[in-house]
Amino acid sequence: MQLVECVPNFSEGRRPAVMDAIHAAAATTPGVTVLDRHADAAHNRMVLTFVGDPSSVVEAAFRCAARAADLIDMTEHWGEHPRIGATDVIPFVPLNGVSMPECVTLAETLGARLGSELGIPVYLYYEAARTPDRRRLPDVRRGEFEGLRASIVTDPTRSPDFGPSRVGSAGATAVGARPFLLAYNITLETSDVTLARSIARAIRESSGGLPAVQALGMATPDPNVVQVSMNVLDTSVTPLHVVFEAVRGLAAAAGVAVAASELVGLMPMDVLTATTAHFARLGDFGRAQVVEARLLDSLTAEYTARPDRTGRGQEAQ
Amino acid sequence: MQLVECVPNFSEGRRPAVMDAIHAAAATTPGVTVLDRHADAAHNRMVLTFVGDPSSVVEAAFRCAARAADLIDMTEHWGEHPRIGATDVIPFVPLNGVSMPECVTLAETLGARLGSELGIPVYLYYEAARTPDRRRLPDVRRGEFEGLRASIVTDPTRSPDFGPSRVGSAGATAVGARPFLLAYNITLETSDVTLARSIARAIRESSGGLPAVQALGMATPDPNVVQVSMNVLDTSVTPLHVVFEAVRGLAAAAGVAVAASELVGLMPMDVLTATTAHFARLGDFGRAQVVEARLLDSLTAEYTARPDRTGRGQEAQ
Repeated sequence: MQLVECVPNFSEGRRPAVMDAIHAAAATTPGVTVLDRHADAAHNRMVLTFVGDPSSVVEAAFRCAARAADLIDMTEHWGEHPRIGATDVIPFVPLNGVSMPECVTLAETLGARLGSELGIPVYLYYEAARTPDRRRLPDVRRGEFEGLRASIVTDPTRSPDFGPSRVGSAGATAVGARPFLLAYNITLETSDVTLARSIARAIRESSGGLPAVQALGMATPDPNVVQVSMNVLDTSVTPLHVVFEAVRGLAAAAGVAVAASELVGLMPMDVLTATTAHFARLGDFGRAQVVEARLLDSLTAEYTARPDRTGRGQEAQ
Repeated sequence: MQLVECVPNFSEGRRPAVMDAIHAAAATTPGVTVLDRHADAAHNRMVLTFVGDPSSVVEAAFRCAARAADLIDMTEHWGEHPRIGATDVIPFVPLNGVSMPECVTLAETLGARLGSELGIPVYLYYEAARTPDRRRLPDVRRGEFEGLRASIVTDPTRSPDFGPSRVGSAGATAVGARPFLLAYNITLETSDVTLARSIARAIRESSGGLPAVQALGMATPDPNVVQVSMNVLDTSVTPLHVVFEAVRGLAAAAGVAVAASELVGLMPMDVLTATTAHFARLGDFGRAQVVEARLLDSLTAEYTARPDRTGRGQEAQ
């Protein structure tokens, strides 16, 4: 089974009718399942999470972006979150049976369509970036919608990867590919926040710790415990159990026990199989031995073979 | 999502056309996915594993049993495995969103149909058993097809729970409910098979060890390692990680390390989430936070809502 996640961010977090229309554009695309919708009025932003096979996910992303371009006028948009367009950013995330280079290709395919069919300037970012200065989103969003509107015309370094060097009411869009991000927190049985901070410093990549790990130490509402709050940017580089054991080991060295841990958001099944395989020493174990994974493979294979899927691309709105 | 597994055993392991016809009866039932088919010529037996929502799984089991009754004549069947009928045994296994009492009800529903519509004597076994002497399959199979044929007429204790007290060419069928069975082996870095045997004795329920665990110690083809081979009959009673840690602890007390472990067959996702939650101390973690589980929920909900599912029960062959 090929499974790709897409997490587009739209510059609308207040008008329910607009959010519903964009959401529906994804939800009605054959082969796509919307797993989550999160909106924030202060940020004036909505984030959709959907999954499906590669071509269906690209199609859904295109339909959402087309609806957003119709319904959102960036010249009238304001909110706390930095943004460059009605559809601000579209990342593709490989979940199963799809490589990162394939997700880069999906980003390129979508970017070309947004540029040519909708006239939206597109910047390829992160793994899809063609130059180092477009890898990070803050760099791509420099000046935001208002600044980019001027600089895209005058500054050759802001020339888009696809679409015109001209920003209309739909703004511009960053399209890219990135690994699944795991948000994972571990609480420690101590009131000493300096311990959480020193452990965070020891394990995060930026200070020479574990690759693909970001970490902060912080107090919690419970004065008896402190927290190491982490983003694992790529669990194939640093698996969940490596993060957990590193934090537990450093805490134990200071005589402090782990109280609990929590996952913020979702986890792909591969993280579960890797963690179980590690702790129970299951050598060859993988998703092929998980009942639900085999059922999912079978259901999606059945779906993909359905005759009503032909000509789907022509239905784009 | 409600998910039930069904693992019917048929008394045919040699004629491909017969096995294919029974297999097809399950595979073509709407709402059902066949995950595995295993046949053994010496046993002259085929085991199907399929999953789906409760009513679809009952329907598929009925259709398979009807085909088997048409195509298998027990008066001409012989093989190494004990058996009482063309469809020898049909267990229902709760996987998700379904309780054991609900699976007992499924067994009763199917048993009543096999008895009244196909004229097959049915014995409810294991969790569905109505008397203690029908709980275990060897007791239900006593005398096998040939012996039961005579005793069902003369011995009131062999009177079936459903259907006639008369065995035809399709024989009789045991229908029941049981938890998921996990076949799990741990190898130890020693050539001392007595250690494997003493650990097996210490952990198995029958000698006062862990509930729902069967275990044997044995040599392996590799002279440097020995194996503790286990069946975990109910992981909600004794989770995988408890089994692993018990074996590891006993081996460590004898100065021996775990070499590896292996899973024979499949594992439900709930075992993965429980193991991951335990080792990474994830308090509230469950399948609702697993991407693939949410996708599966969504796909099966979509399926269940399809209009072409109405009137399905009438299609039984």
